[in-house]
Amino acid sequence: MQPSYHAGMPPRVPEVTETTPLCSIERSVDILSDRWSFLVLRNTIHYGQTRFGEIQKSLGIASNVLTARLDALVDAGILTRVEYQDPGSRTRSRYEPTEAGLELKVVLAALQQWGDDHLPRRDGPTMLRRTRTGQPVSVGFVDEAGREVPSEDVRIVPAQPAA
Amino acid sequence: MQPSYHAGMPPRVPEVTETTPLCSIERSVDILSDRWSFLVLRNTIHYGQTRFGEIQKSLGIASNVLTARLDALVDAGILTRVEYQDPGSRTRSRYEPTEAGLELKVVLAALQQWGDDHLPRRDGPTMLRRTRTGQPVSVGFVDEAGREVPSEDVRIVPAQPAA
Repeated sequence: MQPSYHAGMPPRVPEVTETTPLCSIERSVDILSDRWSFLVLRNTIHYGQTRFGEIQKSLGIASNVLTARLDALVDAGILTRVEYQDPGSRTRSRYEPTEAGLELKVVLAALQQWGDDHLPRRDGPTMLRRTRTGQPVSVGFVDEAGREVPSEDVRIVPAQPAA
Repeated sequence: MQPSYHAGMPPRVPEVTETTPLCSIERSVDILSDRWSFLVLRNTIHYGQTRFGEIQKSLGIASNVLTARLDALVDAGILTRVEYQDPGSRTRSRYEPTEAGLELKVVLAALQQWGDDHLPRRDGPTMLRRTRTGQPVSVGFVDEAGREVPSEDVRIVPAQPAA
């Protein structure tokens, strides 16, 4: 079974040109390479926070910095801006992950797993669990039949040879 | 089967204190949150480049910036410095991934997969393959029996509730 986050998606991101890096890690990192961007994505994708105010309060981030990061993530097709209006209030924006944004879940989970393994805290790790059964889950490599492949048996075939 | 990159490793990183963020994503990102750090890790872990000169040439990075990033990755227990001497030359340093560094392979691969899916280039994607058989591999969630779990069925159990 192919996981949904690996299903072919129509390209949504307008920034890819002939001068874009050949390496897909580099293209991803060019968008995500900022501490605040990762933490905004953690809050929107993992914690389900979508309102400017709740993200700002949770991160303790300056308004102008948060605005810039949210705008960049909307431009990159990772978040989408949705207008909403509470009774008696002005119109505000919510920020919801797009399908491309939701597919970053495995990237965030891989960072989380590595942090839990190599930068552990006494309070114990965060955990990945199956929603329905509560069974523990980890991030790994899988073959086309959905079976785990050991990391040592995986090699990268780059789009261009390493210089 | 549990993948080797998830096997319990003794903590190597001396920086974790009581003021360290509770969130393991945040702890990972605090070390990795820089574009150059990711690209240095790509070159050392994915491309197998270990010499200062070859990394610098491949990345086109200033010497002082590369020195700072390599020092930080050594301090974080991700790379280790190995002295070597070519005949007739002065002693130099190689930078080799530690076991903790090698376990970042799945983080880099997750970024690569996302970039290939959502920031595609006409030259086609980079690819993950089984070393022995050449079969395609992807990054995903797996249960304790080594079977793939759909992304929608995974939830995060944080070390603390989201604020």
